Amino acid sequence: MTRATRDTRSIGAFEFECGESLSDLELAYETYGEFTGDNAVLVCHALTGSAHVASGPRESESSPRSGSASGDAAGSGDAAGSGDAAGQARAWWDAIVGPGKAIDTTEYFVICVNVPGSCYGSTGPASIDPASGEPYGADFPPVTVTDWTRAQRRLLDALDVPRLHAVVGGSVGGMNVLEWVKRYPDRVERAIPVATAARLDPQCVAIDGIARRAITTDPDWNGGDYYGADEPDDGLALARQLGHVMYLSKESMANKFGRRAAGRDAARDTFPADPAAGFFPYRDVESYLDYNADTFVDRFDANSYLYLTRAMDEYDLATGHKSDADALASFDGEALCLSFTGDWHFTTDQATALADAFRTAGVDVAHHVIDSDHGHDAFLVEPENVGPPIADFLADGVAGRAVTDARAGTDGDTEFAPVHASLFGD
Amino acid sequence: MTRATRDTRSIGAFEFECGESLSDLELAYETYGEFTGDNAVLVCHALTGSAHVASGPRESESSPRSGSASGDAAGSGDAAGSGDAAGQARAWWDAIVGPGKAIDTTEYFVICVNVPGSCYGSTGPASIDPASGEPYGADFPPVTVTDWTRAQRRLLDALDVPRLHAVVGGSVGGMNVLEWVKRYPDRVERAIPVATAARLDPQCVAIDGIARRAITTDPDWNGGDYYGADEPDDGLALARQLGHVMYLSKESMANKFGRRAAGRDAARDTFPADPAAGFFPYRDVESYLDYNADTFVDRFDANSYLYLTRAMDEYDLATGHKSDADALASFDGEALCLSFTGDWHFTTDQATALADAFRTAGVDVAHHVIDSDHGHDAFLVEPENVGPPIADFLADGVAGRAVTDARAGTDGDTEFAPVHASLFGD
Repeated sequence: MTRATRDTRSIGAFEFECGESLSDLELAYETYGEFTGDNAVLVCHALTGSAHVASGPRESESSPRSGSASGDAAGSGDAAGSGDAAGQARAWWDAIVGPGKAIDTTEYFVICVNVPGSCYGSTGPASIDPASGEPYGADFPPVTVTDWTRAQRRLLDALDVPRLHAVVGGSVGGMNVLEWVKRYPDRVERAIPVATAARLDPQCVAIDGIARRAITTDPDWNGGDYYGADEPDDGLALARQLGHVMYLSKESMANKFGRRAAGRDAARDTFPADPAAGFFPYRDVESYLDYNADTFVDRFDANSYLYLTRAMDEYDLATGHKSDADALASFDGEALCLSFTGDWHFTTDQATALADAFRTAGVDVAHHVIDSDHGHDAFLVEPENVGPPIADFLADGVAGRAVTDARAGTDGDTEFAPVHASLFGD
Repeated sequence: MTRATRDTRSIGAFEFECGESLSDLELAYETYGEFTGDNAVLVCHALTGSAHVASGPRESESSPRSGSASGDAAGSGDAAGSGDAAGQARAWWDAIVGPGKAIDTTEYFVICVNVPGSCYGSTGPASIDPASGEPYGADFPPVTVTDWTRAQRRLLDALDVPRLHAVVGGSVGGMNVLEWVKRYPDRVERAIPVATAARLDPQCVAIDGIARRAITTDPDWNGGDYYGADEPDDGLALARQLGHVMYLSKESMANKFGRRAAGRDAARDTFPADPAAGFFPYRDVESYLDYNADTFVDRFDANSYLYLTRAMDEYDLATGHKSDADALASFDGEALCLSFTGDWHFTTDQATALADAFRTAGVDVAHHVIDSDHGHDAFLVEPENVGPPIADFLADGVAGRAVTDARAGTDGDTEFAPVHASLFGD
């Protein structure tokens, strides 16, 4: 019996980091469970996710979407199919958040907020500018992870949630977690940055830049002014396909698709065929990319994709500080960095560096590495591996039973590693 | 004093693997050195390369392009800047092929042939179809690596070169090498597949597929019929940028660019800017991609890009055989597989599998792994590491002094490893 709510609330006038302001910023959010004063857990969504992190009690009993096995959990925090009142995607972390699950909504009060700039209920480029009566389009202010964090805090203040037991999020949602720790260290007890880094590496910056160019060179993009007209579906589809390449890995693509042909009748007419296409097989991997791009363009706004990838690409934990460790120095809570061996979007090496920064800052931290072939998607599609360390860290911090640390056993320098060992026999 | 020639020759009617024919297939080729009957070395170019593998004697003395340090050797077998009589790119392996170089043109008779379907002198989609008087465009037959190999053989027959001392090539040019060994094993003494594999992995198949979709969704592509009109420059530029991401690596991009800003005045107007661009820095990595895409669209044909990536994606050494080893079984020469630790386009693991297939087929093979941060581009930009094993293998086969084998020292099973060890003291 947990309560789930879905709402949209104005946090009033908001000045963005770039200096531009909106007279009224609305935030769509969902909550699950009951707030008891010290049990709030903020969950931060990934690039194209929404506030709809878990199914509500009624939805989980009756919604046919909840049991979907279409593989659409893949894709970093979002899913195909919408139809919710708020136009949001399917509950994106339903296997982790809910009654009796790793983030147990019978115990914790979970809040998830759609970030400004997105298109799932919070104010973004597709929203109507009250001054003009037209969508903001490219006039929407450039938005940053810092802006997301500041807006979330304003909303939490409005909801009378002064302090968070934990902040958790994956991918760019993990950067959102880091920004909470950096900006509001006194308001966070435990931080769980998942499959993330202090900043994106140049390779991923390059791919995101190409994805944005695919959108802006689509003639239908029209300088961002396309609402009510043909939308830049081709460009957005290409951008999404590049995203999927980053979310998967060589191993997961070899396992999922290999070089198998999908059969000609699986071919979709989303993209014009290149001349030689008729002679060569239409491959499973192409079918996957075409299918997912096709469903994505129906549910996501191209301008939001431009804005949110910019926010991710430009995030740098060390901004305004001498180092990552310096940016984390005011935090006296605990941190759990989760990373995945098959993830090349955000690598285990980056997570190691992040954990080192926490450690240098004097924070009790564990870097829990999950051996996985699922690439970046692992944080969404392996709840059996992701759930236990999160659950135990929420309960007991770095001493949590299922929490391991990559440094333990290699240099004996971790304070809490022996605790784990002593629990092995339980 | 070596002779260099550049010519285009018709090999007459040609039936492609797909069953379609051209009444007259022309091949552009270059030769360097003097043929003595047993010293021919066929060099196979990469995706967007040309027959212009080395500078001619006169060119190397006077051409200002030879000394270019613009970094444009990056990009898998081609380079920015054209202006040659044949419209070809700058000599793409000039540091490896020439008098006194690793492939020494005072000793070997080097031949390089532009592949059918390309746009550097051989018949391709941009060539005029004599039947219609118009460019072939999308009516050009789908072309395969097998077609390239068969066409090269026809040309060598016409040049009275019955047998090759060696075939060498990198990237898809390495697949061309493998196809020579598979199809004409009696005509090849030594094979040097560089930075290549028996087949492309699904991740790279996916990226190439996205690159083709970028071209075919460009409205200026117009079903392949764009000659004399606006060309699909935006789509081709995006495709090329994806290529560069594959040719580099996380390490090389971190070393070359990091997350540095290029400065606003470096920004080019090739691509429309996304809304937030004005607030965020224009990064070095973007500048690199934009610059290289810009020069590429001036020198390469979009339809050729579609055809040649298809050929690469669809190549599979095992086609028509039970296994890779079975496909190589008729070869009784020697093979040198060169791979690079930082290459994720064609990985060292793939080269290991290829070397294993040669070994299973009973071929004397060495897998020489070069430790490099340069990604796939390493075979072009590290002549100091690539040259010595090639030179010594051409002279002495797998027993060549600078030739190492990744298996040597790990299981003692290689026949020739002790030979290397005995030479260490020299």
